[in-house]
Amino acid sequence: MIRTAFFISDRTGLTAETLGRSLLSQFDGIEFKRITLPYVDTVNKARDAVALINATGQSDGRRPLLFSTMILPEVRDAIAQSDALILDLFEMFIAPLEVELGSASSHAVGRSHGVGASYTARMDAVNYALNHDDGGITRDLSRADVILVGVSRCGKTPTSLYLALQFGIYAANYPLVPEDFSAAALPSALSPLRTKLYGLTIRPERLQQIRAERSPGSRYASLENCQLEVRQAERMMREAGIHYIDVTSMSVEEIATTILHQTGFRR
Amino acid sequence: MIRTAFFISDRTGLTAETLGRSLLSQFDGIEFKRITLPYVDTVNKARDAVALINATGQSDGRRPLLFSTMILPEVRDAIAQSDALILDLFEMFIAPLEVELGSASSHAVGRSHGVGASYTARMDAVNYALNHDDGGITRDLSRADVILVGVSRCGKTPTSLYLALQFGIYAANYPLVPEDFSAAALPSALSPLRTKLYGLTIRPERLQQIRAERSPGSRYASLENCQLEVRQAERMMREAGIHYIDVTSMSVEEIATTILHQTGFRR
Repeated sequence: MIRTAFFISDRTGLTAETLGRSLLSQFDGIEFKRITLPYVDTVNKARDAVALINATGQSDGRRPLLFSTMILPEVRDAIAQSDALILDLFEMFIAPLEVELGSASSHAVGRSHGVGASYTARMDAVNYALNHDDGGITRDLSRADVILVGVSRCGKTPTSLYLALQFGIYAANYPLVPEDFSAAALPSALSPLRTKLYGLTIRPERLQQIRAERSPGSRYASLENCQLEVRQAERMMREAGIHYIDVTSMSVEEIATTILHQTGFRR
Repeated sequence: MIRTAFFISDRTGLTAETLGRSLLSQFDGIEFKRITLPYVDTVNKARDAVALINATGQSDGRRPLLFSTMILPEVRDAIAQSDALILDLFEMFIAPLEVELGSASSHAVGRSHGVGASYTARMDAVNYALNHDDGGITRDLSRADVILVGVSRCGKTPTSLYLALQFGIYAANYPLVPEDFSAAALPSALSPLRTKLYGLTIRPERLQQIRAERSPGSRYASLENCQLEVRQAERMMREAGIHYIDVTSMSVEEIATTILHQTGFRR
């Protein structure tokens, strides 16, 4: 049976969508259709949304689920007229917080994201990650908070970018390649920075899949070569005392959070 | 008065942190110290967390706030022993969902992030954004879902990367530069792709700040030049019929979501 879940907000809807998806993932065997309705910030838009939600319920034959982070009271009231099961993330928590803090909430939208200094810091970190991607510029490597190492296509680039965009961390990344394994030594640019190194590894079968999508039939993408590179990279990291994690079944968010957690950076 | 807020989870803690920060931003005049405790996934780790939470409450002189997305029942029970005000995002919503769906939740961790095909799609999008950053490779521009245009340093690069990392959107970006304004014409690579163009603009005062951090004292960063470039870029976008938004006080998340919303891409 298909159930439709709406994520609705007077802002981006990212909070409603994030929590809603987590909750729905707890229910196996039910297929969910997910629809995000961001920027529903007037009563008129709310009425349009209610019409869509109710029509969807009619055609599904079951009322939709509605995850809401509405802050504006009049818009929230309009949404409350829908036939859906409403799970209002703000209403549920704002009331106990008002009691605990002895303070009324502002019911003002657009406060959840910082701008200004923290925006600049994150942008500087993104530029740093871009300039220090894939062993790009080595001059400035000592400014890195962390330098990710591992074989080609194991996930270093997206992880560096995520660390920069989400947390403002200066993350460089540097590939371990067959020439390093032949020399049985870390790339020379990395030796003085050993304490900043953090390794990613991956199961060879998954690496083969990823590489084959880009370079089908190549020796580079062959299972035999992937097995060899992964084995040699892991040995090199062990011998150099570099901590590494297997990212085969991790999302970019999970890899980044694990690194933050284990290296003890403050968010 | 300072209050401490903990975000705690048996996974990354990103959901608890996102919703918790939104909620706290509704309370003006209270200063919050925020601490994220991810991967609290055993009873022993939960006991350590409770000790930290209680000690913090002692030294603050007020009990902490605790935003939790614990899935494992035994870990959640251990956390429930703390002195904090516990706002349990899962407990609050799982029960009504179980009733509505007529199905027990799995109480299994690690289900909130997709891997596999969607991971690959996002990584392909990141590679595309990297290759098509700042007018880099023009050959493949027609494959873009969206091409961001605007003056240098207005936020195109982080927005492209966010669209790729978060949503798997193929986002290229292309700068509008003084030579284009002199020629009074869109860059030739862009003319055939007009329907994919989406403009970013920014207040000249903010642009000056951003540019001056990188190139202090330059003509490029002067207020006069920033005013001129922004005025010319906006005129060019209007004449070419390119929709544009002012991103001066928007976060990257908000810019990306607005673009998705207005262009109608499915997430």
